[in-house]
Amino acid sequence: MEITARAPGKIILAGEHAVVHGYAAVASSINLYTVVSLRLGSEDEDTIQLQLNDVGLDFSWPVERIKELLSHLGSPFSSTPTLCSLETVKSISTLIDDQNFPDTKVGLASGVCAFLWLYTSILGFKPATVIVTSELPVGAGLGSSAAYCVALSAALLAFSDSVNLDVSQKGWLIFKETDIELLNRWALEGEKIIHGKPSGVDNSVSTFGNMIKFKSGDMARINSNMPLRVLITNTKVGRDTKALVANVSARKSRHPNAMCSVLNAIEAISDEWSAIIQSHAVDDLAENEERLGELMEMNQGLLLSIGVSHASIETVLQTTMKYKLASKLTGAGGGGCVLTLLPTQLSGAVVDKVVEELESYGFQCFTAGIGGKGVQISFETSS
Amino acid sequence: MEITARAPGKIILAGEHAVVHGYAAVASSINLYTVVSLRLGSEDEDTIQLQLNDVGLDFSWPVERIKELLSHLGSPFSSTPTLCSLETVKSISTLIDDQNFPDTKVGLASGVCAFLWLYTSILGFKPATVIVTSELPVGAGLGSSAAYCVALSAALLAFSDSVNLDVSQKGWLIFKETDIELLNRWALEGEKIIHGKPSGVDNSVSTFGNMIKFKSGDMARINSNMPLRVLITNTKVGRDTKALVANVSARKSRHPNAMCSVLNAIEAISDEWSAIIQSHAVDDLAENEERLGELMEMNQGLLLSIGVSHASIETVLQTTMKYKLASKLTGAGGGGCVLTLLPTQLSGAVVDKVVEELESYGFQCFTAGIGGKGVQISFETSS
Repeated sequence: MEITARAPGKIILAGEHAVVHGYAAVASSINLYTVVSLRLGSEDEDTIQLQLNDVGLDFSWPVERIKELLSHLGSPFSSTPTLCSLETVKSISTLIDDQNFPDTKVGLASGVCAFLWLYTSILGFKPATVIVTSELPVGAGLGSSAAYCVALSAALLAFSDSVNLDVSQKGWLIFKETDIELLNRWALEGEKIIHGKPSGVDNSVSTFGNMIKFKSGDMARINSNMPLRVLITNTKVGRDTKALVANVSARKSRHPNAMCSVLNAIEAISDEWSAIIQSHAVDDLAENEERLGELMEMNQGLLLSIGVSHASIETVLQTTMKYKLASKLTGAGGGGCVLTLLPTQLSGAVVDKVVEELESYGFQCFTAGIGGKGVQISFETSS
Repeated sequence: MEITARAPGKIILAGEHAVVHGYAAVASSINLYTVVSLRLGSEDEDTIQLQLNDVGLDFSWPVERIKELLSHLGSPFSSTPTLCSLETVKSISTLIDDQNFPDTKVGLASGVCAFLWLYTSILGFKPATVIVTSELPVGAGLGSSAAYCVALSAALLAFSDSVNLDVSQKGWLIFKETDIELLNRWALEGEKIIHGKPSGVDNSVSTFGNMIKFKSGDMARINSNMPLRVLITNTKVGRDTKALVANVSARKSRHPNAMCSVLNAIEAISDEWSAIIQSHAVDDLAENEERLGELMEMNQGLLLSIGVSHASIETVLQTTMKYKLASKLTGAGGGGCVLTLLPTQLSGAVVDKVVEELESYGFQCFTAGIGGKGVQISFETSS
């Protein structure tokens, strides 16, 4: 039997950076997915194989070798999400070193480490083949690592004893509410290996889908009643998130009064976002889209004023402004991705034109629905 | 004897739009001038002549004709600045109609009306030739009409009985403190004819020079201790100031919390501007310039967030950003002028390059020192 799990990416709709200083932010799932397929029993019966298709990496570990390094941990313990200790990271690194990891892709090693931790913790040492594909660009702030950890945890838990699923059902299924909390906690442990100190927002959005309002570590799931569509433009300009966050803090200490008012304004925008998307006024869709567009324009101005915009972002803004479309950066800024709201009434021809113009600058464009379902799973009985 | 008066233009350094809602703003004089020369006794002894050199308009009124329409007012009353009544505006309009005013320049008629009101009120019906030239673009938010009214009032008052000046002095002179208040009040009466309900800021900056912090109708003169230089880029995109102001108010009523925080942030920036320029830390000039540049960037973001930027402004910003120079729109936005701070250490070669690039877009650039003297006057005894 093969299990396929898919987990969505995320965008920050409002409140990035402000959230670091204790103000509210709103994140949403996007219907761009990372997909993990898991088939127990590899062709070579005694190995665990991992194929990362998008980055062209293939790994294969003899089960005996993995046992040699990790069996003292006493896995599997699928119902008990556990931090991967530094010592275990070292053991796993030995396994990764076995594979002649290419230097140019060394940034992906932590993802492989997360795989081995989640795999052995949840399923122990069963031979299997795991194939990962993704529609999400890596390192662009769209939550690709969280989607990876969530989809991986979903596929692994589906084979474990900790989760009850009806394998006879067809199509994409969602987890039961109790099981999904467990899944989310495992995904967070994976994220910790990749990111050190993740906020937990990315994996929660990918797990639960829809939207999440978060502030000072608290997260509240909010249900969107609006079918919203966005254009996501990846400027492909790499960011140093830590430096950007540090620069905002420095600016805040230089100009405390102005910056506190700016952060207050951002929080007010996050509050308004969450109020609008929860309102049941489907009749006023166009009007609400206009309000959200205005909020995005306002938020972008505020992000400019805290110093996290970038020439590439401004180029995207200038382009979409020509089509009277509202845009804002999403995530850390300094490059990364820009959101553009695509009103329901906007014709496909206009979207095509905007995309064509943006791609002529070398940017990468995705259109996505937002606020959709979280992680889902499907079974295929091998015939 | 000929008298020449020159009055500077103004820029808003911080707080435009916010000031409409009761928050502080800071304006500064710029060393770009409107110059008015007045020679009593015209070549044709019985006329009052006005030459507006920059716009190619020449007017000549027989003194008898002016008397016919305005002598019932009992002028001159140079020591008593007086509102030009609607009825008098009508009489003056008849004088303007006498002159076959070109349709394409009808927007300038109010300036001619202001001239006739100020002239006859202050000097009565003495024949004279008045020549106006200006370095200030009209209608670009640089206070050209105020500079015109101030320079005009200065030249007229210099010939009146209400002001005492030492005609033997050479070079540019300033008015005595008591006389200058009178001058400013006359200039405001001229501004009222041109603008309806002027705030009084433009004429005050042009009259007193230096910088002014204003809030809810109160004005405080502040003395800059920093020799600041800016690049002013006129996008030449005409604005509808009333519509822009109305749009900000509408946005404020749609998003009251966010907008109030944004306006608070703008006021904090105005406060910081005025604190920095008054500080005596000349040693830290470069550091202070950096702080002011940061405030300009922040302010521009906030102006974007209240919705008063424009594609042409964004083009200027993108250009100056390439040279790591801080810019913000100044005045109403929606086109108009953009300020770019030129740090003292910046080489002339870089400034030339920026100007060249901006002018290639069809923009018009001025470099100007800010915070200099207000209206000045000089005498030339005809030999």
